[in-house]
Amino acid sequence: MGRAASRRSMRRLPPPALLALMYLTVIAMGTVLLSLPVAQEVPVSLLTAFFTSTSAVTVTGLVTVDPASTFTLFGEIVIAVLIQIGGLGLMTFAAFLLLTLGISIGMPQRVILSEELGSASLEGLMRLAKLILTVALVAEAAGTAILATEFVPDHGWAHGLWLSLFHTISAFNNAGFALFPDSLMGYNTHPVVSLSIAAMFILGGLGFVVLGDIAQARSWLRLSLHSKLMLVGTAFLLILGFVLIALLEWSNPLTLGGLSPADRLVAAFFQSATTRTAGFNSIDIGAMGNASTVLMMVLMFIGGGSTSTAGGIKVTTAIVLLLATRAFFRQRQEFAIFGRSLGLVEVMKVMALTTVSLGVVALSIFLIAIHWQGSMFDLTFEVVSAFGTVGLSRGATYDLTAPGQILICFVMFVGRVGPLTLGFFLAMAAQPRVAYPKGQIYLG
Amino acid sequence: MGRAASRRSMRRLPPPALLALMYLTVIAMGTVLLSLPVAQEVPVSLLTAFFTSTSAVTVTGLVTVDPASTFTLFGEIVIAVLIQIGGLGLMTFAAFLLLTLGISIGMPQRVILSEELGSASLEGLMRLAKLILTVALVAEAAGTAILATEFVPDHGWAHGLWLSLFHTISAFNNAGFALFPDSLMGYNTHPVVSLSIAAMFILGGLGFVVLGDIAQARSWLRLSLHSKLMLVGTAFLLILGFVLIALLEWSNPLTLGGLSPADRLVAAFFQSATTRTAGFNSIDIGAMGNASTVLMMVLMFIGGGSTSTAGGIKVTTAIVLLLATRAFFRQRQEFAIFGRSLGLVEVMKVMALTTVSLGVVALSIFLIAIHWQGSMFDLTFEVVSAFGTVGLSRGATYDLTAPGQILICFVMFVGRVGPLTLGFFLAMAAQPRVAYPKGQIYLG
Ligand SMILES: [K+]
Ligand SMILES: [K+]
Repeated sequence: MGRAASRRSMRRLPPPALLALMYLTVIAMGTVLLSLPVAQEVPVSLLTAFFTSTSAVTVTGLVTVDPASTFTLFGEIVIAVLIQIGGLGLMTFAAFLLLTLGISIGMPQRVILSEELGSASLEGLMRLAKLILTVALVAEAAGTAILATEFVPDHGWAHGLWLSLFHTISAFNNAGFALFPDSLMGYNTHPVVSLSIAAMFILGGLGFVVLGDIAQARSWLRLSLHSKLMLVGTAFLLILGFVLIALLEWSNPLTLGGLSPADRLVAAFFQSATTRTAGFNSIDIGAMGNASTVLMMVLMFIGGGSTSTAGGIKVTTAIVLLLATRAFFRQRQEFAIFGRSLGLVEVMKVMALTTVSLGVVALSIFLIAIHWQGSMFDLTFEVVSAFGTVGLSRGATYDLTAPGQILICFVMFVGRVGPLTLGFFLAMAAQPRVAYPKGQIYLG
Repeated sequence: MGRAASRRSMRRLPPPALLALMYLTVIAMGTVLLSLPVAQEVPVSLLTAFFTSTSAVTVTGLVTVDPASTFTLFGEIVIAVLIQIGGLGLMTFAAFLLLTLGISIGMPQRVILSEELGSASLEGLMRLAKLILTVALVAEAAGTAILATEFVPDHGWAHGLWLSLFHTISAFNNAGFALFPDSLMGYNTHPVVSLSIAAMFILGGLGFVVLGDIAQARSWLRLSLHSKLMLVGTAFLLILGFVLIALLEWSNPLTLGGLSPADRLVAAFFQSATTRTAGFNSIDIGAMGNASTVLMMVLMFIGGGSTSTAGGIKVTTAIVLLLATRAFFRQRQEFAIFGRSLGLVEVMKVMALTTVSLGVVALSIFLIAIHWQGSMFDLTFEVVSAFGTVGLSRGATYDLTAPGQILICFVMFVGRVGPLTLGFFLAMAAQPRVAYPKGQIYLG
């Protein structure tokens, strides 16, 4: 079978459908495994198994039960594997698929041989896979070793090493699952734990494209446009969140107020970083002030980087949204970032992605609200958290009825699979069939 | 002075700045007049006078005091004049300005002589002004006469006629100010009052462009693209809101539940229509369910028609947002509505308007939230209501601190002036100074 034939066979199912199908298959397998008695410390419903599996595969981290006390070691291993498949595995698969379709995913020329369709050779694919897996395994091995210095003294060798491995996998994949009932609140005075976990999920959230690019380019000027935007945008959002959360929560006795000034800074930084998709928390989210909570919703909606383990509409989408707005006010018909121009296709994609995202979030809030008696602010937070596959919670998820839980599963699924599949639409440009006369309408 | 010279003198100040300056001047004059002792039944602060004046000029209708018991007849007349200037007067002025700049505002060819810059003659301007004022005065005279049949028997000739005139001005301009402390809740079993008021604010919310177009074209096929979109979009939103509010509130004893089935239908229709910018209410907004409230926030954010007395991002903006999204998923680089194509300029404008609008709403909620102890859901509702110059309230406005009130004034001002001024930016297209090489970034 030649290259052309192999490409044709991968194209029989439309790529977005293929991707969605693979996620659904993994979620179903996880549901079955978590439903086995051997996985359960206490009996759980099929819905709980489904919710936990969906949350793990979509690397969200929202839970309706406490994982550590509900599932056995076998169940926890299942969750860790689901997280690794849902994060690393499917990202690698998505990168493969993009390459097979001849879509550049921004890797330097040394890794993919050419941006054109014909040359996405098996050789190029294997190199990419090796790079992604090498980056991930090195980072995860280092993370486990560092966390073990804290968890082994506290919990003994066996359990301590498992805790280190589990939280490393959860952190690098931005999953936010923790085996402590209060997430990482017990470690908010242990900077080694919170800073190394933060380092892992920030790395994972930049995306493999950026990590590979940095590994190959080694200088700012040689980085791709995408990598430059991601690094600048990530730094800006991290600092903005850090400064505002520190200012707003500094004297809140229920969050930062009870810590030493140095620990307050670490906790504010951790919360700023984790909100952008990781979903761990080292302070009580439900006790944070109204303004910090609004800020966190905006950060959760934006999320992390494309082709990463992060969710949300993505940092680059937010940047293009802002630049296109500025270009409009400056009466430009196209606009540039770092010396590269962006045109109608990017603007249309950003608009489509943002509109669909806002639509999914608003419609889900509306539907759950029909039978919701609790705080609408908390419900909104939970839906945005699910959409951004963040997993931070003000507690509303525990109060959801069965239809509400299923709807949140749908939001997590769309939040994870939706933005990814949009990338495939760029592959197949088509011309309009009929050219209409120009019309003018008034929008202001 | 020739035509060219007269055009040049109107252009010295940038049109958006000129428009904003005129609104600020009228607001300042209103604040001074409402601060006079002769305007006040009970003493009010300068801030209250400023808030009331801003709310009237921006035709919003949010209040921090009950207008009827706070202001004298003189004060009420001042409010009515501010509403008429802020609604009709400044819309006429904006239409003039657009014409002077040579921007077609969609009037049929018989009214404006040509769409090109040189031919926006004084003759054309006078015809337009005459048309707008004729439409408005005929509608307002008819409205006053119809309302008088209900208000005169209840309140005597003098007060009854004044109530009829005031509510007609408030309705046609979509201002939402009422001289009853419970808005129109006392008349929710009087279909003559609620349906005639609804007819007036729906007419006013379509926009003068559409009304003039209907008056001249008299057949669907000869209507402009803009008029067709507005009529279809308005009908769709009216019916959607009517059906959902009726379903969701049918058995709520605090809203529709206490009325007869026929009155429930009228009240549901009235609430659907008024949410899209008028701001009157015939049922208790604070008692409506969570889902209805979410729906109303979406409707308030969308608002009514361009060059109308309505607010929000506008119906046409929402339609282009949806069509551009659909076009993206169908891999089209341009898209068409009713046989007319729309391109990059419209997409950029829609994106700019939506981004700025969401930004203003989110930032205002964030800033007020810093010192807000009440319900965040109610606060969000109030900010969206102010942005859409709607004026519906769940009561949060009464609880605002002075900085919060000033911020809401700013939101009302931006909600009224912002979308209008965006129209001017389309006037002056400019080419990019440098052509950059094309760059690709990943947004999903
Ligand atoms: K997460
Ligand atoms: K209004």
